[in-house]
Amino acid sequence: MENIHPIFDQLLSREEQEKLLNQKSKVFWFTGLSGSGKSTLAKGVEKELHKCGFCVKVLDGDNVRSGICNNLDFTLAGRQENIRRIAEVAKLFIDTGIIVICSFVSPTTAVRNTAKQIIGEDDFYEVFIDTPLEICEQRDVKGLYKKARAGLIQDFTGISSPFEEPIKPKLRIKTKNRSIEESTDEILQKLLTFI
Amino acid sequence: MENIHPIFDQLLSREEQEKLLNQKSKVFWFTGLSGSGKSTLAKGVEKELHKCGFCVKVLDGDNVRSGICNNLDFTLAGRQENIRRIAEVAKLFIDTGIIVICSFVSPTTAVRNTAKQIIGEDDFYEVFIDTPLEICEQRDVKGLYKKARAGLIQDFTGISSPFEEPIKPKLRIKTKNRSIEESTDEILQKLLTFI
Repeated sequence: MENIHPIFDQLLSREEQEKLLNQKSKVFWFTGLSGSGKSTLAKGVEKELHKCGFCVKVLDGDNVRSGICNNLDFTLAGRQENIRRIAEVAKLFIDTGIIVICSFVSPTTAVRNTAKQIIGEDDFYEVFIDTPLEICEQRDVKGLYKKARAGLIQDFTGISSPFEEPIKPKLRIKTKNRSIEESTDEILQKLLTFI
Repeated sequence: MENIHPIFDQLLSREEQEKLLNQKSKVFWFTGLSGSGKSTLAKGVEKELHKCGFCVKVLDGDNVRSGICNNLDFTLAGRQENIRRIAEVAKLFIDTGIIVICSFVSPTTAVRNTAKQIIGEDDFYEVFIDTPLEICEQRDVKGLYKKARAGLIQDFTGISSPFEEPIKPKLRIKTKNRSIEESTDEILQKLLTFI
């Protein structure tokens, strides 16, 4: 240990990691209203990619808010830091050659741009889960819309706070009148051309 | 998309991810003085494991402080949050089936216990890179010991702030009078029995 050998002082490159896994790592950033089906589709796509032999990580509210972001609140500053940390984690995963699917409402262009800047434009693929508000609200799986309409939740996206649609998403998935399987398959077929 | 199918609503399990990669994921937490050789050995072990076909992620000061932890200072609170985030990131990686090597001074039992609690006792393998202070200081690759002795860096581990040796590390690597290759190989042989 008397000398530091430079060859030992570099981490594996992303290319070496990708080669081992035989895939190209990218971040697929699912954005859309609460109840649009983002996380359900993210998990469906994850399973299908896994079946095809790809190594994939889904980051969503469940595994992020309970861990790395468990000390953040829902103020504007808290939400911004939340997205920043998610993007930094996603970057650590793509540097390891892993395909990442992020599933977050991320309602504004500004917030999605923050993520894009950190991750890098070439690796950031915006996937807009385009489900009309009426359908999300009808569905209301978590009862959040009801609470938002009753004024119990402030700044609820789509009700009391705007959702800015992505202008040029890499993919726009219209889920209306389509089964989960159909939407999953549509995303999957397109993702496969990128990885 | 009219119904949420429960089968779609689960993330891939760690076991499924491990099976795909044909490995067991663990966190190997390298602790030791600045200049002890932690990161050099972490990178050496990473490369060797990669050659054997394992998917490995090294987390160290370079990729953590420049990203997920780039808004933290070096106060006690900042250092604690630094370790907390690193441990949470490591957990996201092992949940994806990936072997993680963390390389951080992490000088106190308390700070290492924080990491162990988050990661989980069964997945946390402490690797003590046991290099005597005199050797680290002689080496002084980054010139930090000189600065610390001159009083330019406060609370520098080993000089003005204690390093609490791990009591029962999973591995203790004595690097004195050994080459990087020898120490790397010693760690590698032992790690291979755990993954």
